[in-house]
Formats: sequence, C-alpha cells, structure tokens
Amino acid sequence: MALTGKNLIAGQWTGETENGFVAFNPALNQPMTTRFADATDAEVEQAIVAANKAFYPYSQLSAEKRAQFLDTIGEQILALGDDLVTTACAETGLPEARIIGERGRTVGQLGLFANLLRSGEYAAVIDKADPSREPLPKPDTRLGYLPLGVVAVFGASNFPLAFSTAGGDTASALAAGCPVVMKAHNAHPATAELVAQAISSAIKLCELDSGVFSLIQGENYRIAEQIVKHPLVEAVGFTGSERVGMILQAHINQRPEPIPFYGELGSINPQFVLPAKLAENPAEIAQGLVASMMMGQGQFCTSPGVWLVVDGEQTEAFEAAVKTSVEAQSAGVMLTPAICKTYQQTVAKWQDIPGVSLLALGQQGESHLAQATVFTTSLATFIDQPELQEEVFGSTALIVKCSEASDLLQFVSALRGNLTASIHASDADISLAGELAIPLAHKVGRLIYNQMPTGVEVCASMNHGGPFPASTNVRSTSVGSEAIKRFQRPICYQNLPAELLPSLLKD
Amino acid sequence: MALTGKNLIAGQWTGETENGFVAFNPALNQPMTTRFADATDAEVEQAIVAANKAFYPYSQLSAEKRAQFLDTIGEQILALGDDLVTTACAETGLPEARIIGERGRTVGQLGLFANLLRSGEYAAVIDKADPSREPLPKPDTRLGYLPLGVVAVFGASNFPLAFSTAGGDTASALAAGCPVVMKAHNAHPATAELVAQAISSAIKLCELDSGVFSLIQGENYRIAEQIVKHPLVEAVGFTGSERVGMILQAHINQRPEPIPFYGELGSINPQFVLPAKLAENPAEIAQGLVASMMMGQGQFCTSPGVWLVVDGEQTEAFEAAVKTSVEAQSAGVMLTPAICKTYQQTVAKWQDIPGVSLLALGQQGESHLAQATVFTTSLATFIDQPELQEEVFGSTALIVKCSEASDLLQFVSALRGNLTASIHASDADISLAGELAIPLAHKVGRLIYNQMPTGVEVCASMNHGGPFPASTNVRSTSVGSEAIKRFQRPICYQNLPAELLPSLLKD
Repeated sequence: MALTGKNLIAGQWTGETENGFVAFNPALNQPMTTRFADATDAEVEQAIVAANKAFYPYSQLSAEKRAQFLDTIGEQILALGDDLVTTACAETGLPEARIIGERGRTVGQLGLFANLLRSGEYAAVIDKADPSREPLPKPDTRLGYLPLGVVAVFGASNFPLAFSTAGGDTASALAAGCPVVMKAHNAHPATAELVAQAISSAIKLCELDSGVFSLIQGENYRIAEQIVKHPLVEAVGFTGSERVGMILQAHINQRPEPIPFYGELGSINPQFVLPAKLAENPAEIAQGLVASMMMGQGQFCTSPGVWLVVDGEQTEAFEAAVKTSVEAQSAGVMLTPAICKTYQQTVAKWQDIPGVSLLALGQQGESHLAQATVFTTSLATFIDQPELQEEVFGSTALIVKCSEASDLLQFVSALRGNLTASIHASDADISLAGELAIPLAHKVGRLIYNQMPTGVEVCASMNHGGPFPASTNVRSTSVGSEAIKRFQRPICYQNLPAELLPSLLKD
Repeated sequence: MALTGKNLIAGQWTGETENGFVAFNPALNQPMTTRFADATDAEVEQAIVAANKAFYPYSQLSAEKRAQFLDTIGEQILALGDDLVTTACAETGLPEARIIGERGRTVGQLGLFANLLRSGEYAAVIDKADPSREPLPKPDTRLGYLPLGVVAVFGASNFPLAFSTAGGDTASALAAGCPVVMKAHNAHPATAELVAQAISSAIKLCELDSGVFSLIQGENYRIAEQIVKHPLVEAVGFTGSERVGMILQAHINQRPEPIPFYGELGSINPQFVLPAKLAENPAEIAQGLVASMMMGQGQFCTSPGVWLVVDGEQTEAFEAAVKTSVEAQSAGVMLTPAICKTYQQTVAKWQDIPGVSLLALGQQGESHLAQATVFTTSLATFIDQPELQEEVFGSTALIVKCSEASDLLQFVSALRGNLTASIHASDADISLAGELAIPLAHKVGRLIYNQMPTGVEVCASMNHGGPFPASTNVRSTSVGSEAIKRFQRPICYQNLPAELLPSLLKD
C-alpha cells in the first residue's frame, strides 16, 4: 500500500504533508523521502471526540466480537508483508531478523488478549442475596469490570511494532473495550502508518465504528499536551524516557479530574554477580552480560546497565573478559541521530566523573555510529553520584565494585525503582542470594535468578513495571495479560434483574 | 483506660496537650474537656521513619500471623467496651445503636481481611519453564504481590470507627503488609485514641514492631501536607470532601515520585424513579427515599441527593408524600458545628437559585440542629447550574423533574462520577431501565436496582468508589475484600529457586 503521510482520523486520512516532517534512516545516515503531516489541534480534537462517540457501542461488543477484531488486526499486519519489515528496518536501523521477531510478538500479543477474552476468565465475583440474614438482609451484589473510555497511547522509539501503533498498550486497551487515540513516535511514522492501515482494514472487516482507532502523526510537542489534558481522555499509556514521562505527568497533574497515567520510564536493571558464581567461570558471566548489554544496541528498557561484583581473586579475570568481549563489538546504528548523540555525550561525560574509570571500549565506527563502553566505579562513588542511577540508553554498563558481600545490601538500599534485577549465583551463594532477594524485590518489578534481564516473556505471570522511575503506576504491568486491567475498573451491580446484567455476571 | 490526649508514635504516647485542641459534643452543643496535642513536625517524621523501619519485618510475616494481628485488633476494640461507644457518641452526636452497629462492622472488616489472608486465595499465577520451546526457551515466571510500604490514612468525620483509626483503609493496608500512619480526624480525637490503644495492645500481644502503627492527632492543617509529601509514604487513603481531597491531591502532585492516592470524595447518588414504579405507589417510594436521606442525618457518602421523576399524573401525589414525610422529621444533630453551619448555609443559598424551589421543610429545632429539606427543580436548571451536582452533606435532596423519559438519558450524560445510582422500576419499566443502565453504569461505582443506596455491604463483590469525583482512583474500592489490592503491587519472579520463592508461589 502507498504511504499517504497523513493522519488517520476516525477512518479518514487527513492533513497537510507539505510543511510536515520526514523520518530519518539511521543506517544510511540520511533523511527519508515521504513527508508526514503534523496533526493540527482540530484533527486531534476530532480524533478524540470520534473515539468517545465510538466508546459505548464498542464497549458493548461481545467478548467474541472483540476477540475477532484483535485477531483480524494481527492478520492484517501480517498481510502487509515485507513492506512493513523493510519500512521498520529503514526507519529504526534495527536488523530484519529483529523486526520479524517483533512482528511475531506483536501479533502474538493481540492473540493473547483475544484468547483471554474468549476464555471468559474475567473474574466475576457473585455474592447472592440472603433475605433472611440478621440484622439486615444481604442484597445480591456482583462485581464486574467496565472499560475506562478513550485511551491515549504514545508509541515508543525502540519497539516500532511491539510497543507502538498496535503494540501492547493498544492491544490491551482495545481488548478492555476502550477506543484508542495513538500518537505515533516521530522516528517511525511510515511504520506507524502501515500498521494503522492494517487496523483500519480490520475495523472495516469487523464493521466497527471508525472512531475506535485514530493515528496522530507529528513532531510538534504541543500535540502531546493537548492529548493528555483532553477531558475525554480517560487513561494514558506511554513508554519512553523519564524526562519526557515526567513532562507528561506534569500536564496530567494539571487536569481538574485525575486519570491513570501508565508511564514506563527509565531503568538500570542491576545485575548482582555473587562471589561463588564469579569464581566459577568469570569469563562466561562476563560474556553473558556483554551479550545482553549489546542486544538492540543497548536500546532495551531491560538492558543491564549496572553490574555488581564483590572484589576478590576473580575480579581481574572478570574485568579482563569484559574488556576482551567489549573490544570485539562493532560500532552500531542507533534508533535516531538524537539518541546516538545523547549516548555519545553521556558516555563522554561519564569519563570525567571522578571515581569512574573507562574499562573497555568497543570498536570505533563512523561518527554516526555508537561505540560500546563499560565503566567501573566503587560503591561509594555510585552512592555519591545520583546521576549514575540514571538510565543511559545505549550499549554501556557500569561495574560497581564492592569490598564485601554486605555492601550489596547497601547498594540495594540506595537503589531507585527498576523494571528488573538479576541475581547471578551458584549453590554456594544461596544464603547471600536469600538475604539480597528480600530488599531487592521491593525495588523491582521482576526479580530474576541466573538469567539475563533482556527478553520479556509475554504471558499471564509477567510483570513489566515496578517502583518509580521504572513506572509511574507501580500497580500495573505493560506486558502480559494483566495489562488489560489498566484500562478497566470495577463496578458492583446490586439487585439487578438478569435482563440488565452483563452476560458474564448472570447466574 | 484513661485518655492521654497524646499522639501514639511507634508505641510511645508523646506530645504537649497544653496548647492543643478539644473536641466538641454536638448534641450538648458544648466543648469537651480532654485536651489533645497537635503533633509536631518531629513527631510526624518519627512516626513515618519508624513505620518504614517496621516495613520489611512486618511484610515478611506469614499470612497467618498477619491474620492473628487483625483478629487481635478486633478483640481489643471490643474489650474497650462501653467506653468506646459512649466516647464516640459524645464526639459525633451519632446514636448509640448506630455506633454499636458501626463497631460490629469495623471488627467484621478486620475479620474479613483475616479470613482472606488465611484463605491463601492470593492469586498466584505460575507459568512453568519450557526449555524446549522454539525459537527461545520459556523461563519459569511466577506472579506474586508485594505490599507497597508505609501507608498514610486520614480518618473520616462521618464514620468514627468504620472509616477511621482501625477502619477499612487501615485494615486493608495492614492486611496487605503495610505499616500505617493514621491521621485522626480532629472531630473525634478521643475515639481515635481509644482505638489506637486497642491497636497498640494488639501489637504488644502479637509481639510486632511498634512502628507498624502510629496515631497522629492535630487540627493544624500543615500536618496533612507533611504526611502526604513525605518521601517514605508510598500510598494515601482518604475519605472526605471533594474540596479537601483535591488539596491533598495537589500536594501529592508536587512529589517528585508519584504515589497512589485513594481519595473517596463527593457523591450525589442519583435515584431514578421510573414512570410505572412511581404510578404503582407514589407514597411508598417517597417514604423510602426520605428514610434513606435521613439516615445518619444525611451524612452518608451514599446519601440519595438527587431524585429523578418524569412529570406525570402521579408526580403531585409523590411530592405530597415527600412533603408529609419530611415535615414529620425532627431537626437533628450533625457531626460538628462547622458541618452543620455549612449545611445550613448551602440550603439557604439553594433557596435563592432561580428555578430551584423549596418543596418540604422538616421540623425546626434549636439553632445548632439541622432541619431536613427537599427541593425541586427542572432538568434544564440542573444542567445549567453545575453547583447542583455538588454534594450537600446533610439531610437534603433535590427532585429533578423531567418532561419525558428520554430526559433521563440527557441527565445521565450531564452527570459527573458518583459512588452509586439506583433505578427504581416496576416490570413495565424494564425496557427504559435497560436503556438507562448502560450509560449510567459508566458514571457510577455501584448500580442498584429497586434498593436504596445507603448501606454498603462489606463483601468480595462490593465496589465503593467510582469515576471522579466519587473517587480519585477509579480502579479501586475502599470497601470489601478487593480493597487490599490498593496497597499491593505485582512482582514477577523469574527462574527463582524454591528456597527464594514466597510460600504461595512454590510448586
């Protein structure tokens, strides 16, 4: 399908592309050709009003109809074929295999929610009446769930499919019964448009109201503010930096009516390498950590940014193995020139922090490519320098060397919230691992044992979130079937006749 | 037990009562004698730090130990005997039977959470490993729940026991594994102290860390700000007015790290009397509504504040019955002189709103007592005057007369969020009831059929919350067993050895 460069506003492709923006091919280091419209205030308004109008009819669809819609979106995404893969690779610099894998995951997520809807597992609690109860009769009360209303979603730069137009936030909101107004990330507008075309086809095939989904393009920042402050928007999903997330949070805080904001922000994902584990095979653990750090050129929210070791006989061997492994890494393409520049500047700045030393440097490439780096520091420096707890988006890590095992607990108590942490331990470390696990669990959304943090399983027991700044809403996950709950809320039906009860709550 | 007038700070009774404040007996219309300390900044700080220190050990208690603690609090509250009842009646003006009932409900809530903990129902989701899965092995992932940390609770004026010191918020937070810092409502400090004595005894009997519960007294507003902005406070529970709730929300919005704020604020609880129901027996429905409005002198968050009727043959008979019923109501004691004054002023103001007419006036009493009132207005006036959607705390209601049945839908679309709404219907009204139920459900936390909204069942299927301003967090309930979830958050344990898994998540 040809690209229009326009916004999809309730089924219509609208907007002026002339003065719009273009995407950039980071691998070729040159701008792309299609020009995309910056959505106007009027288009944003129209999309939200149409979504609100579509809300009641859409929320009344049977679970089966909603499941069919999700499945159809998946089919239509696959029907885009190679075009989608080529486009996403060009706009993000990510390799083909990764994009194909991510497409599979995106379609899989839609299927997961379709199956969840079909399973009818949606936790109906029924407490029947007891007219003879003393001192007062017990009324019939039944707990159900309603969708919240129009959901605004902001696409992520680093997952052009799985956390973008038809990604986890969109899939879970649509599954919950909420229309979606999607703000595409301006780093991959063509990918966003193709996926929006697929969703639009699915809407037609399923004969739904076109207001159920709109796509807003633009690089004008004002659009985000307009969306999150709009009185008809009932929830916001966002995956991105702590800086941008907190700007959105500040706008949302100005609303007269509070709404849930699901921001998945920064994380350094600390990796605790316990002494016996390190001694066992220092090279193996070093190579594993470097490989995890290099995944997606370090542009994963679960990238292992800080590695803890207790200084001992094997530290030198570990560091040597890290050095060897990092030096073998080619320089890599990052998602956008701005992201690459920020990475390069931060890494340069770290070299000037007293107490932080550069341990290893990957291969140098052309100036638009990013070079892998690993630094080392002491626990004291880490605790003294709060900026070392800020996520650096890219292929870098900081080794924090502790003098003794109890320092690991001190590190945990200074740690901010994180999406994940891993404890790498051998059998001889189990008692230390147990001591560490309790306070560490309170700092993370996912606690991992002897596995790397990159790679997030999409299933019912997943939690992708965690204490701030990992997430702005610690009680929610943006991955896995529980993600649907972010866009629903409880309602109690008291003494309702069967005709008026939702089907799940009938006897 | 004698009253100290002091704060309970992690097991110690501290504070200077000399320059403190006294409570007021609204029935006798005179101040009481015991003087209560205004907590200092240092005492508040100490309470929160002690609660945080108690958090990890308390959160590690077995479910059975936590259940025993809740049961022991209930026993200790009952052991306070008549003292508690007499004190609560004196401080609130509420009748003895009501306070005895509320005490039963408070002890019952503690027992509900104890049973919930013992049932071990806490939704463990276990997805075992699948090492042979292609293209990547599936790791073992298990979803559990962790308590959030220190919870701050603000007591409500209108439920000195069930929504105060050991009320629903405290019970659910303690059940979740969170220490509680309680700010007593300054209208009933002695009741709060007695219940805090009971909790303190339970802490000693169960040999827990004294930081698990502290009671902060005071009428100095600055205390609230200090509490909700404190970096160690991880969640806030509040029941009270929209005005005060939004002040707390604004303070919380200034925190660098967002935390959940569970504010249960105002509600007008609209009552839809459908045409056939009205025709059936206008006097019966009128008497039922007036009786519900008079409960607790109208000082219930579920008090029916707006009644909808469709103008017809029976409207006159309905209004006449309302008038007769209201005129028979004695003037009543309100919770505090300030609440009574606000009620009197608001009711006086309403008489001056063009298009609003006074229909019925209860008996006049002494100047410190509140007189019941019922007003009438048109749908157009109701929609034009946003202040008519603001809760009036006290024994008053507004009858909104619609010209035709379809006006009821127009009313619903103008309606803000509410805790409850009731549809009063006979068989002949069922189709209209069905039409109304869908949009109305989206405006309320509990939808009721042919029952009055007052009286909130404490059970697993209850929802006491709803869209703003009913609640600041639409996804939560402050009553019933689901209330515990407000103070817990998910965590995924990936590939953990059995020794490190919480007991509920072991195979």
